[in-house]
Formats: sequence, C-alpha cells, structure tokens
Amino acid sequence: MYPKEQRQWVLKQRPHGLPTTDDIQLEMGPVREPEEGEVVLRNLYFSLDPAQRDWMNDTVSYLPPIEIGAPIRSTTLGQVVASRHKNFKEGDIAVGLATNAWQQYSTTPGDHLDLVDEPEFSPHYHLTILGGAMGLTPYFGMLRLGQPAPGKTVLMSAAAGGVGSIAGQIAKMEGARVIGLTGSQEKCDFIVNELGFDDAINYKTVDNLVEAIAEKCPNGVDIYYDNVGGEMLDAALLNLAKGARVVFCGAISTYNADGPVPGPYQYWQILAKGATVLGQMNLKYADEYPMALDHIRQWLREDKIKFAEHIIEGIENTVDAYRMLFTGENNGKLLVKVADL
Amino acid sequence: MYPKEQRQWVLKQRPHGLPTTDDIQLEMGPVREPEEGEVVLRNLYFSLDPAQRDWMNDTVSYLPPIEIGAPIRSTTLGQVVASRHKNFKEGDIAVGLATNAWQQYSTTPGDHLDLVDEPEFSPHYHLTILGGAMGLTPYFGMLRLGQPAPGKTVLMSAAAGGVGSIAGQIAKMEGARVIGLTGSQEKCDFIVNELGFDDAINYKTVDNLVEAIAEKCPNGVDIYYDNVGGEMLDAALLNLAKGARVVFCGAISTYNADGPVPGPYQYWQILAKGATVLGQMNLKYADEYPMALDHIRQWLREDKIKFAEHIIEGIENTVDAYRMLFTGENNGKLLVKVADL
Repeated sequence: MYPKEQRQWVLKQRPHGLPTTDDIQLEMGPVREPEEGEVVLRNLYFSLDPAQRDWMNDTVSYLPPIEIGAPIRSTTLGQVVASRHKNFKEGDIAVGLATNAWQQYSTTPGDHLDLVDEPEFSPHYHLTILGGAMGLTPYFGMLRLGQPAPGKTVLMSAAAGGVGSIAGQIAKMEGARVIGLTGSQEKCDFIVNELGFDDAINYKTVDNLVEAIAEKCPNGVDIYYDNVGGEMLDAALLNLAKGARVVFCGAISTYNADGPVPGPYQYWQILAKGATVLGQMNLKYADEYPMALDHIRQWLREDKIKFAEHIIEGIENTVDAYRMLFTGENNGKLLVKVADL
Repeated sequence: MYPKEQRQWVLKQRPHGLPTTDDIQLEMGPVREPEEGEVVLRNLYFSLDPAQRDWMNDTVSYLPPIEIGAPIRSTTLGQVVASRHKNFKEGDIAVGLATNAWQQYSTTPGDHLDLVDEPEFSPHYHLTILGGAMGLTPYFGMLRLGQPAPGKTVLMSAAAGGVGSIAGQIAKMEGARVIGLTGSQEKCDFIVNELGFDDAINYKTVDNLVEAIAEKCPNGVDIYYDNVGGEMLDAALLNLAKGARVVFCGAISTYNADGPVPGPYQYWQILAKGATVLGQMNLKYADEYPMALDHIRQWLREDKIKFAEHIIEGIENTVDAYRMLFTGENNGKLLVKVADL
C-alpha cells in the first residue's frame, strides 16, 4: 500500500556551487504505479554521496545528469510496499540506486535492487559499511587499485570521511604506513586514536601542505588515495615516490565549481615519477561484490574495522545535511533517516 | 687526442617559452681531462629531445635541472678520443646521456656509455630507432603501458614525430586500430600511406577536435598515447572509452610555458571512465633493454617498421633546430650532426 502523492526533493535548476534549497526544492509529487518488473519502495534512509553533486551538473559522467524537474537520484534503503517483481514481496527490505531518489517512495526496477536479509546487521549498514560508497569503494579502491603492502606509505585524503576512514583501515590491515589528511584536531585524534592511522595532518592549520606531507612522508608517498582533488592533490603529487599509485576515487573540492576545473597543476609529476593514476569504477569488480562484502562482514565480526555514521533525521533536512558533505561538518558517512521501519 | 678548448652551447638563463640564442649561447669552453673511469667523446651527433626543455627549467623532474652556466645536457653519439675506462678504447663509438651535452667533446663516465659496435646498422641509429627516445620509449610505452590488441582503438598524438610514428606502428603490429593526430596534410598522408596508420586527423584544420576524434573513434579511445598534453589531451579525455589507458609519455605543448601549467580540464574523465593514466619511466624496464633492441632490430631486418630522421648539419644550428621540435617543422626524429666519423 502506498499513497498517490508524496514529498520529494526535485532539481529545479543546476546549482552553482554548494546546492541550496533554491536549486533543490521539497515538493509534492506523484508516486508512480509499478510496471511489470518494478517495485515500490517506502524509503527509510537516503545515502548522501559526493557523486550526486556531479549528477546535478550537465556533464558527461558515469551516469547521465539528473534532469531538471526530476527528483534527486540517490541510493536509498526502503521497504517494499508493492511488488511486480518475482524476487520481492511486500515487507522486504531492499537497497538500490537505479531510479531511487530523495523522495518518500521510489518506484524502481527490481532487477536493480538488492534484497537486505541478514539479521546479524542493522539494515541501514547496507548504506554504510556494507554499501557501495563506504564499503565496496574503499575495498576495491585500496586493495585492487592502491595495493598497499608493508613498507609502503599511504597518504589518505578526507581521512575521517566515509571512504577515507575505511580505506585507511584496510591499508593498515595490509601492513602499510598510513597518514591521514583531515580538517580538524578532533578528526586527527579520531583517525589516529580510534582508527589506528599512524599519523595525521590537519590541512586547515598547516602553513605549507607540501612541506607538511614531506615531513610525515620522508621517503615519499607510495599510494595517494584521492577523494578531494584540487590543491590537496597538487601537494600530494609533489610528494610522490617513484612508481607511486594515485587512486582517483573522487574530487570533492571541485564538485561545486562553476565550469571546467583545471586538472592538477602538478600533473607533470605523474610522468616525472613514473606514477600511475587509477580512476576507480566499482562496476569493473561487480562479480566480486559478494566476496568483498563477506570479507567486510568478517572484519565487523572480528572488530577489525570501525566506522562512523552521521544520521540526520527528517526528509526536510536533506539539502542542509547534503551541504555538510562539502563543508566537512559531518562526522562519518552521512545518511538521512526519512521513516521508521 | 683532443683540444683544450671547444665550442659548446651553454645555458645562460632559464628560457621563457621557446628557447632562444639569448638563453643558450655558443661559447668557447674547456675540454675537461678525463678522470679514472671517464672517457672523452668527440661528439658526432646530438639528439634533440623534448625532455631537454624540461631540464632547462628549475623544476622537479626525473633528472636535476641543467645549471646556469653549464652546457645543455643531451644524449650524444661520439667517438672515443681518450679513455680511462677499461671497456673503451680510442676509436670506439659510444652513446650516452650522463654528462654528455651540446658540445664538441664530452668528458663522461664510461659506466654510463653504451658501446656501439654493430656493422649492420649506421651508428647514428643509436640516437634514433635503436636509441632511448625513438626506440625504447615507444616500445615500452606502447607494449607495456598501452597494451594494444585487436579490437582496441589507439589515438596517437604527435603521430608523425619520433615517438608517435614508432608507437603507432607497434600498435598496428599488435593488431589495434590506430588513428594519428598530426599538424599538416603532408604528415597525415605520411602516417597513413607510409606508416600504415588507419586514419589521421589534422588537428590544425579541424573545427572541433573533440568532435573530430569522436567521428574517427565512434566507440571511444581505448588507448591514448600522450606526447602533447594541453588541449589535445582534454579532447582525448572527452573521448575515452570505459577502462581506457592513457600513456603519459610527454607534454610538449606545455614545456615552454612560464610557471605551473594546469592539468587537463577534463581530468575528471579519468574517474568517470574508470581510466588509468600511466606515467612512463623507461628505467623501470632497464633489464629488458637488450631484448627490446633485439626486437626492434628484427623489425628493421624484416622491414616491418619505418622511421623518419631529420638531420641538421652544424653545431651552430643546434638551437634553431631545437625550436623546430616545438613548432612542428621537423619531419621525424631531430638530430644535429656536428662532425664526421
């Protein structure tokens, strides 16, 4: 059972800079009836991810831009309230991205949903540590692309964030030395004392980031895990060791820019150091998702990995919450809780 | 036997833009006596390479900057006229880079020289097709980093140049489809009719390079071999296929810039397409040099590979010749012949 109308966040205009409630407005809209193969999800949680900012632009990316007038595409977790797909029945919990959005109800193809059915973990873990952005991304980004090992120095950007905090812990488990870049003393303490990073740099308070990295990484950076782009990437490039690997996972510093953003001014260092930049695309590893998730579950059971969630309550707070991603006010993976199970 | 004085091209000031004879001047200088382990080479040919422009700047690179007042570091081929190294005797022909320079005589460590002793090929081939820049660079760049194969589309920048012409032919031998970017109709004809490229784009006459590439590469570019950087790199990035490989071999469009040059404005495409950028560093393959050269020799014997040399006569013409590298006036690998054998 579902209503005919619902509240949803609709893209009214392409944002310039940080999205505002002028760009994205909470409106009443229809709940579309499911066609054959579709289900209707009553959304419980929205995942707030940097990639969504890119989809708000009219640019070439791995998914098409969100159309003006459409609700904001989002990975959501919800409960099935109507099903025309053989794998789902009413009451099931499911997670997916395809046509899910910041709205109370998403009518979406069942083929693109994953059933959530493991009593051992809270369902919303499938938007955090057992989900794509916080689980699979750092898993494949670090293990397949970064390839940490004993003797290697890893520099982690956005080290207290959803991806960085997990990627850094994975690098530690692989025996690497891990230095985290983050934006407050509190977060520095968190990643060192709680997550076990070897050291931290508060990029907001250092005089010279290039020198600060050089001091903490005297033999150079073997693996730079880039969630940020911009000046931080340049500072990292100037500290690359020979044969370094740069995992290109995101560029949050650039998502709110108007118009084309220049690539790193130190791009030349990639050649000078014989480095490799690896653009991350999880889909390449789709066959390995179940194995990766089993691996992460095992780490959770053995308490080998810690993660921080930052859950904001209420659909009406979604855009305000989303802005926190870019100001760094969040502490861990950002979710909006929109309904109780 | 060697004189006490010689003519040499000395760096007087760091060039802004294209080097001029104000920046680099032909002067008389001493011929240094060899210490133990060194030889004196009477230079026969200078190799003119884009990397030298980078060494003229005061920037971090894979070799230190050329000091003001020092002769211009260069790979040269010469005849040994004095030897204090057990592997070399007077009359030997040798090639090397270490302290070799644009000068009549280079006093240089024998350990960093390679003896040239194969009657089958002209000695100066060791600065062209059997040398580092024109032979080993496209060999390892294409085979190890680019990894062409049947069904793959290769886009080659500076396709009529020393590296591009050979890298493109290697990709053809590996079964890939190869499209060349070059700057004149004459060069387009050369790479298609003489070198066997599948197609060519004259980047100087197309209205929109992004569209021109899209037209010739309708399924996207699987391997972009970058010798150029700048706008051409951006146009290539916008045409990458999923999982594309970008071989970063050079960035000749940026070498004459003053100050830091922004990286590609389309850097984001590396993430959007899950692409990999591979900075080339030949030294990584040093153990494989003899194998690679044997491979290239075999291609020459079987007439499987063609190459163009552009030889300028006279040490006094070195800087003028060097400028041709950046204006595209050269046809093939540029050498300066400074003396007869």
